[in-house]
Amino acid sequence: MKRMLSIFAAAVVSAAAAADGARWIWYPGDYGIWWGNELQGERLQWGSRLVPFWPLYEPHSRVLFRKDVKLDADEPLEIRCDGNAAVWWWDDKGVYTESSALLGKFTLPKNATSIEIKIQNNARPPSVWVKGPHLVSDSSWNVGWTTTWDKAEDVPCDSSARFTDPGTPPGLAKLPTREKKPVWCRPLDGVEGSIMAADFGEETYGYVRFIDVKGGGAVKVIYAESEAELRAVELANTKGGALDGWEMLELSETKEFRRDIAHGFRYVGVVRAGGDVSIGGIAMDFETKAMPVRGSFRCSDVELNRIWDVSVHTLDLTCREVFIEGVKRDHWVWSGDAVQSFLMNYYVFGDYDGCRDTLWTLRGKDPVKCHLNRIMDYTFYWFDAVEKYRLYSGDPVFARQVYPRMKSLMEFAISRLDAAGRPADREGDWMFIDWAPKPLPNNGGVTSFEQMLLVRALEATAGVARDVGAKGDEAAYLERAKRLRAEIVPRYWNAEKGALMHMIYNDGRVDPTVTRYPNMFGLFYGYFDEAQRSSVVKNVMLGDGVMKIQTPYMRFYELEALCSLGMQKRVLGEVKSYWGGMLRLGATSFWELYNPDESGEAHYAMYGRRFGKSLCHAWGASPVYLLGRYFLGVEPTAPGFAEYVVKPDSGGLEWMEGDVPTPSGSIHVSVRGGRATVRGNHAGRGVLRWKGKTAEIPPEGSASL
Amino acid sequence: MKRMLSIFAAAVVSAAAAADGARWIWYPGDYGIWWGNELQGERLQWGSRLVPFWPLYEPHSRVLFRKDVKLDADEPLEIRCDGNAAVWWWDDKGVYTESSALLGKFTLPKNATSIEIKIQNNARPPSVWVKGPHLVSDSSWNVGWTTTWDKAEDVPCDSSARFTDPGTPPGLAKLPTREKKPVWCRPLDGVEGSIMAADFGEETYGYVRFIDVKGGGAVKVIYAESEAELRAVELANTKGGALDGWEMLELSETKEFRRDIAHGFRYVGVVRAGGDVSIGGIAMDFETKAMPVRGSFRCSDVELNRIWDVSVHTLDLTCREVFIEGVKRDHWVWSGDAVQSFLMNYYVFGDYDGCRDTLWTLRGKDPVKCHLNRIMDYTFYWFDAVEKYRLYSGDPVFARQVYPRMKSLMEFAISRLDAAGRPADREGDWMFIDWAPKPLPNNGGVTSFEQMLLVRALEATAGVARDVGAKGDEAAYLERAKRLRAEIVPRYWNAEKGALMHMIYNDGRVDPTVTRYPNMFGLFYGYFDEAQRSSVVKNVMLGDGVMKIQTPYMRFYELEALCSLGMQKRVLGEVKSYWGGMLRLGATSFWELYNPDESGEAHYAMYGRRFGKSLCHAWGASPVYLLGRYFLGVEPTAPGFAEYVVKPDSGGLEWMEGDVPTPSGSIHVSVRGGRATVRGNHAGRGVLRWKGKTAEIPPEGSASL
Repeated sequence: MKRMLSIFAAAVVSAAAAADGARWIWYPGDYGIWWGNELQGERLQWGSRLVPFWPLYEPHSRVLFRKDVKLDADEPLEIRCDGNAAVWWWDDKGVYTESSALLGKFTLPKNATSIEIKIQNNARPPSVWVKGPHLVSDSSWNVGWTTTWDKAEDVPCDSSARFTDPGTPPGLAKLPTREKKPVWCRPLDGVEGSIMAADFGEETYGYVRFIDVKGGGAVKVIYAESEAELRAVELANTKGGALDGWEMLELSETKEFRRDIAHGFRYVGVVRAGGDVSIGGIAMDFETKAMPVRGSFRCSDVELNRIWDVSVHTLDLTCREVFIEGVKRDHWVWSGDAVQSFLMNYYVFGDYDGCRDTLWTLRGKDPVKCHLNRIMDYTFYWFDAVEKYRLYSGDPVFARQVYPRMKSLMEFAISRLDAAGRPADREGDWMFIDWAPKPLPNNGGVTSFEQMLLVRALEATAGVARDVGAKGDEAAYLERAKRLRAEIVPRYWNAEKGALMHMIYNDGRVDPTVTRYPNMFGLFYGYFDEAQRSSVVKNVMLGDGVMKIQTPYMRFYELEALCSLGMQKRVLGEVKSYWGGMLRLGATSFWELYNPDESGEAHYAMYGRRFGKSLCHAWGASPVYLLGRYFLGVEPTAPGFAEYVVKPDSGGLEWMEGDVPTPSGSIHVSVRGGRATVRGNHAGRGVLRWKGKTAEIPPEGSASL
Repeated sequence: MKRMLSIFAAAVVSAAAAADGARWIWYPGDYGIWWGNELQGERLQWGSRLVPFWPLYEPHSRVLFRKDVKLDADEPLEIRCDGNAAVWWWDDKGVYTESSALLGKFTLPKNATSIEIKIQNNARPPSVWVKGPHLVSDSSWNVGWTTTWDKAEDVPCDSSARFTDPGTPPGLAKLPTREKKPVWCRPLDGVEGSIMAADFGEETYGYVRFIDVKGGGAVKVIYAESEAELRAVELANTKGGALDGWEMLELSETKEFRRDIAHGFRYVGVVRAGGDVSIGGIAMDFETKAMPVRGSFRCSDVELNRIWDVSVHTLDLTCREVFIEGVKRDHWVWSGDAVQSFLMNYYVFGDYDGCRDTLWTLRGKDPVKCHLNRIMDYTFYWFDAVEKYRLYSGDPVFARQVYPRMKSLMEFAISRLDAAGRPADREGDWMFIDWAPKPLPNNGGVTSFEQMLLVRALEATAGVARDVGAKGDEAAYLERAKRLRAEIVPRYWNAEKGALMHMIYNDGRVDPTVTRYPNMFGLFYGYFDEAQRSSVVKNVMLGDGVMKIQTPYMRFYELEALCSLGMQKRVLGEVKSYWGGMLRLGATSFWELYNPDESGEAHYAMYGRRFGKSLCHAWGASPVYLLGRYFLGVEPTAPGFAEYVVKPDSGGLEWMEGDVPTPSGSIHVSVRGGRATVRGNHAGRGVLRWKGKTAEIPPEGSASL
């Protein structure tokens, strides 16, 4: 046993440390991976559970938690473990004591120099909670697979302020619920076999409850986002089950039946499928993460205020344990959608743990099995999202936790490039870009757009490599980024069209088609000289000759590009037209897609299915990001808003004001009567830019111009 | 969706296929990995759960099961899934239909060409069960991570005849139990606070039950293998908890309290730790895999018959869902122990699935995290065990399932070799060899023993590579094996001692110590010419000058080496002396270690703890292997006993007879009155060798010489 070495370099807890803030801790990523699997496995479609078509990853089954200590006296600890566990420790003579604890109450001897808890759980992420007068479980603990026989990992654990209750480990912590009554509740006329139906007045999410169930037998339960969908019961009987959100349940006489799996819906209908069930009423338990809405936005335009509110509601419903893209469908964690949710979240909830956990859901563990969601661009976005997460959250340990998996994902991505090192079309790697009308020439070559995303991903990886001291990696990724970046404009610029072309085929053939994607990304990634920039703005952004963006997904980036050009006034018009259009159709949350040219039930159709469209889709909430980032104009320039810039632009609104959350407080911005005022209720140091003037904003201070 | 290709090459089920044999199916290895985690996490020590000190692996969270079909009519299916799942299928026009099933009852349309079930489970191995008139879930189904977007894996699933009940998926299938009454049950005189204790008459395993619990409060429950251990309650109170098998429980008034976690023990004691609990009696539910004892052995020596019986009991207790090494302690799956359990099992239960599942427990998934159990030799044994599993079981698909993980483990092992490609001592790689008196010079250089194991591992890997058509790998591994094999005798032969030396240090220094390990393995791996062989037998195997083997673990190989030299008579004497010695001390199962020179309670001590020794240790059961393999003399020479040799040697016993299980039946051998008779009640073709003569044994036929 001579080789038993303590190799962890965790911070030492001293007897003087405060004895509060005990949190459940777990292996970095395990919570996000595990909850991601839970949520994604719950997708309800066509009467059964539709599981993602990409590989999932698993949390660790066995974890070791470790902390170096320095005690002045024996330390009585309360220890809770979610799993099978034992406590071990080292003493000041280098002796390793192989446990003896009753885990509930355990006294760490005064001469202990470190404590280790080994834990195994097959069903949930192994996690522990420790509380003593001086020693508590928190983010200063390290994790590893093992110790004493080999060099273990020296990585800080994950934790969250959400999980402090010793009775509720993270794997058993359900989101809170509250009862919600329907606006109306009655059987549906004209729907054969309708037992009962209810409208909850707005898009919602939770567990339905059937009150006073009498008789017994099978029922079809329809979860619908529109009344038309609620009434389309016949689609649940067709081949392929054209109606998405329904399931078959067996009911028997009971005062109350509560469904134990949550769904997203506005309407619920119950239709007889056998037997003689009757139901007295329908209620629901609304499940919510109950995050405080720390951001705000109000202005002189009532419709814009309503757009902000409905966006927040949309985001609230989709930001669950991890961030799903839509509550009725898909209920999955898509990278392209999630990275937009992150940005919106930073301006509404400041739920940094939720972003971090979702980054882990997407990334999974090693080895990498495929591109994120099997989509090449979705892999590339993830790297940028890691860098942005660090910028907004200021998370001091995430770089160390994530870098090994960031690097292995980048190495995977590099292994899929073509001989020239470009992101070529390859069997199995879906080039998604956008749900746009086909044929969009995505396949069979290299798109300038994907190459731009790859460059951004390489730059972001190099940034994190620098943070963790991986200098060789940093240089290699930067070099690769530089080379790929340099060739984009020369290769793809079409002088005649004055814009970047979309695609060059593998056989060298150049497709002259210009799309908005590379041009708008080129604008905020700084690819153009002044002449090119003007040309792109004129010919692509403001011209009619290039295929229009239809999805809120890509509209997010299009409007961001316009904002970055200072075209807030134009963006304001577009937001009012597009999002206001949905509101005028009665939307209570924002949609996956909106086409003003359609009418009636056609609005609900997508993917060739009459009700295939998601009416509560995270990417639909992008106005909260645009308003916070480009209207209130708040942007962090150092991690955690330690430094930040406020550059308001009301886009012609008479007045506007609002708050942007930061890790240490919030930033209040007000524009009124030609003056801009900022109050920084947090620790960071800012700069206000307004009408060509500049003012410093001290920590916890304000500035006005 | 043009790229949706059916790439699986599973066997097609035709409408004529029989509609029986529906089994639960799962991703290869998931069951063994998952149950291995369960069992290993249940180790009870010093009042808490001692988790293995090596990394564990996880089963897949999401699996796709797939089968090509050809139907004459619509096929009504009953489908059960342990997890969230949906059914998809292709039709004969290449259209992929994205499910619609209520999983309970589902009709696969006549024109379907394949069926796919995607399933996700965070808590148990995802598994499915399908039964229709023609299509059932069985080992002909393939598994993968995904399909439709990429080339999926084309690997057959795992299944077992144990899991056919649609109501009980493998992850919920507990082993059967039956009630067992104690031999006596009373409070213990002379043990302070003793509430009740019981002796179950022999080593056993299961769930204790306390009858007529009155009052309430905390109790210490002592699980003991000897009465002395039962009475040593005070050790549970000492620092470090010197008494291994105890736990603290809270009891309150109830007619019966049943512990929901199983333990191994013979005695149970309950001691007051607070409150005023009284207990009316103790019973238990004996948990057993209930495998039929298909092998048998009887002979003219009554003691040897008893040794066979107690060995079978020992093996029965340790061969659980997967094979643990001891029931009281460690409750872990150690590779060195397990590979011996496999060999014993082949001659007793023929539980091939149990061997396969345990091979998976040990191997886990990719990426390889460390040597098996962190022990270099334990990694090497595993490869040989894979080859032997194929030989004994005849499993037709295991090679294809296991080869990718066999190769990655071998590549890991190779990455740990020194510059000369030898298995050198390296930080983190435990060279275990044996629990022998120290200092045994294991560290600081290369042992001839480890190098021999590596050679065997390379040869076994090459064999499986050949089976799966990986010709390049096969050649590379064979070449490496050949080179390492050729240097062993020239490097390690000590002419003066006439035997192989144990160790050459990294600095080139040769330690002249001779140990039995390389010499006995050298005998059955064929390393010696005739003169060397005689010298090794005389100087090592039969001489007194070399440190004796003490553990049943290495005694297994020592006695095997003697048997292979035709020294059955000597082995018989050793078995009667060593195992008979334990019986004479009242053993009801065989021990981790037995030293005839010790007496009284000293027999129970190990690892510096008074009751540290396991008294029911799988490796203690080796007589069943020696008697079946070298006395009855039955050896498979082609997979699944398609060909086999019977070469009996009674070692001087007046008579002996017995059965050896095969996948398709059994082989009965009888030696009596100078004649040997074999009856092959199975499909294989054998050869009987007896006193220099040879006779063919036809399938289902017999031979006598």
